[in-house]
Amino acid sequence: MINFTVGPVQMDKETRKLGLNQIPYFRTPEFSSLMKDNEKLLCKDFDAPENSRVVFMTGSGTASMEACVLNLFTRKDKVLVVNGGSFGHRLVELCEVFDIPYEEIKLDYGKPLTVNILEHYDGKGFTGFLLQLCETSTGIKYNMNLVSDFCKKNNCLLFVDAISGFLADEFSMIKYNVDCAITGSQKALSLPPGLSLIVLNEKAQKIIYENKVKSLYFNLADYLKNGERGQTPFTPAVGTLLQLNEKLHRIEKAGGIKAENKKYSERAQYFRNKLQDLPFKIFTNPEDSSNCVTALTHINPEVNVYRIFELLKDEYKIWICPNGGDLKEKLFRVGHIGTVSKKEIDTLIKAFKDLKKRKII
Amino acid sequence: MINFTVGPVQMDKETRKLGLNQIPYFRTPEFSSLMKDNEKLLCKDFDAPENSRVVFMTGSGTASMEACVLNLFTRKDKVLVVNGGSFGHRLVELCEVFDIPYEEIKLDYGKPLTVNILEHYDGKGFTGFLLQLCETSTGIKYNMNLVSDFCKKNNCLLFVDAISGFLADEFSMIKYNVDCAITGSQKALSLPPGLSLIVLNEKAQKIIYENKVKSLYFNLADYLKNGERGQTPFTPAVGTLLQLNEKLHRIEKAGGIKAENKKYSERAQYFRNKLQDLPFKIFTNPEDSSNCVTALTHINPEVNVYRIFELLKDEYKIWICPNGGDLKEKLFRVGHIGTVSKKEIDTLIKAFKDLKKRKII
Repeated sequence: MINFTVGPVQMDKETRKLGLNQIPYFRTPEFSSLMKDNEKLLCKDFDAPENSRVVFMTGSGTASMEACVLNLFTRKDKVLVVNGGSFGHRLVELCEVFDIPYEEIKLDYGKPLTVNILEHYDGKGFTGFLLQLCETSTGIKYNMNLVSDFCKKNNCLLFVDAISGFLADEFSMIKYNVDCAITGSQKALSLPPGLSLIVLNEKAQKIIYENKVKSLYFNLADYLKNGERGQTPFTPAVGTLLQLNEKLHRIEKAGGIKAENKKYSERAQYFRNKLQDLPFKIFTNPEDSSNCVTALTHINPEVNVYRIFELLKDEYKIWICPNGGDLKEKLFRVGHIGTVSKKEIDTLIKAFKDLKKRKII
Repeated sequence: MINFTVGPVQMDKETRKLGLNQIPYFRTPEFSSLMKDNEKLLCKDFDAPENSRVVFMTGSGTASMEACVLNLFTRKDKVLVVNGGSFGHRLVELCEVFDIPYEEIKLDYGKPLTVNILEHYDGKGFTGFLLQLCETSTGIKYNMNLVSDFCKKNNCLLFVDAISGFLADEFSMIKYNVDCAITGSQKALSLPPGLSLIVLNEKAQKIIYENKVKSLYFNLADYLKNGERGQTPFTPAVGTLLQLNEKLHRIEKAGGIKAENKKYSERAQYFRNKLQDLPFKIFTNPEDSSNCVTALTHINPEVNVYRIFELLKDEYKIWICPNGGDLKEKLFRVGHIGTVSKKEIDTLIKAFKDLKKRKII
């Protein structure tokens, strides 16, 4: 199978080889030192300010989303949440669950956040701002300059879910004054799923130490404290953390975060350039499109695009990424993260053309 | 390194080989069918009553402990918690965090739960009972017959943390009237860490559907609902779930749960029989000792046993399992789970004898 989903994605052979190894015992100085190295390298790749820290959360990306909302905000806050798809909606749900006063900016699927929209919320006493870097369900990448300006002006704590955007899209905690950003192992890091990562600047750490949360597993203060000696409160996904370390060093050697961004940008562009003879429309404007994923609709809205996912899987041995909910039959996605080669993209385009020839699309 | 810890443990070569594979996309009928198969096999291995269900939790064992306490009990309950070590203490902490009225039976480390102790709590209106099958920090296995009788008589919902005991020690949800039991991937299942499993009988499922919890990630009703179609609400540890399926089939072929119990019992006995010339004392009575792990003290209480862990690691390439907290310098543990061979046990015994010859122990 060729995998064009947005996770789990195709892993490098170096990562897979480590999957063959035994997993070491982890309450050792050796593992602590590897974890401190992971923390240092991740802070560099998130372009995090000095004294930032990383929490290694054993869980899906949603575990880290929940832990951040729970630890960073309280009933005394008033937060603004950008909801432009299923992951933005998840942030809204988390505010609901934890009784955090919020307003949501509900965007039409695939539409950008604009100055005009944000103006409406200016000077209204918001204390926090939550959004995705890339809303994975539609492929839109939000304008971080706008968001950053709004947060500075309104003194908002800025949380960015960069789960699918990290490495693929340009991002910097320093440049955009981000207080907390997260990612997941099975996205552009191209590791097995089950690990998520939380990067926190000093301000966010201070808030975490001050808040008291109703959870052991999501008590981030406990993770920060254990992390000082390179450990976690509970048995972590040790194998994935070893694979993470190898991958982070490989990113470093290949030119760091800039080279990563360039690679994914070129790959997304290569795919998008090949779409001209196909009956698809890219769902987002070029300037607002993430390098992580391209969301596509059929030019004929009567065509059920979920069927394309099924046919590619069963007859062409290719996974693309279907959508859930409202968009299931209207939108499908092609991921650009993981070890996707030009040759594999050509194979996918050929399969699309074949479906066209067969008059299926 | 030879690994005698209690997790992550040594994995079988079949499991490791799967770690080399690419990880498939999971929102497919193929993966759903594998998950339904995992559920069926786990219910069999837990000897769970008809219509039991399994929740696949991406997280450490503590994630499942927290999810169960949060979903099964409320402020209207009054629960009894057995605290005989760090994992019993964790159950107490969870009741504290979620304001669940509780009393704790605080046992001296390594000491069994007895009829006399339980009598004291009889007829006092307890609605729930929480304990470990095996308290991993001391190696004690609790008498499930006693617990089961107490719960039947007092109409208590019975939660058993079988994280380290599952497969190693005799256990049956039917026989002991257990409503909810959990385990972790990195224990006797010998998979990578990062996945935990919750088995629920019909009564427990009903409670979960009735309770409303303040969490998305630990909302077990959502897992049960998604599980009906073989899916999870959030991206799970897909790779580990594939390894789980292969392992469960292998257990089945090798004679099922009885053969597993026998294997671990013989292995623990083999190790314990070899201790006679060494200056160690087994911390638990033979009849109350788990097959999962043997906890040992030095006959001379002045000897710092953490040093034994360090020396074995650095000079003999062997990991044993140190303790944390109060017991760090007094108690160490030798695990019997994972692919530990007689030859490897002999190597460990030889290393102990060498330390004795060197007058270190």
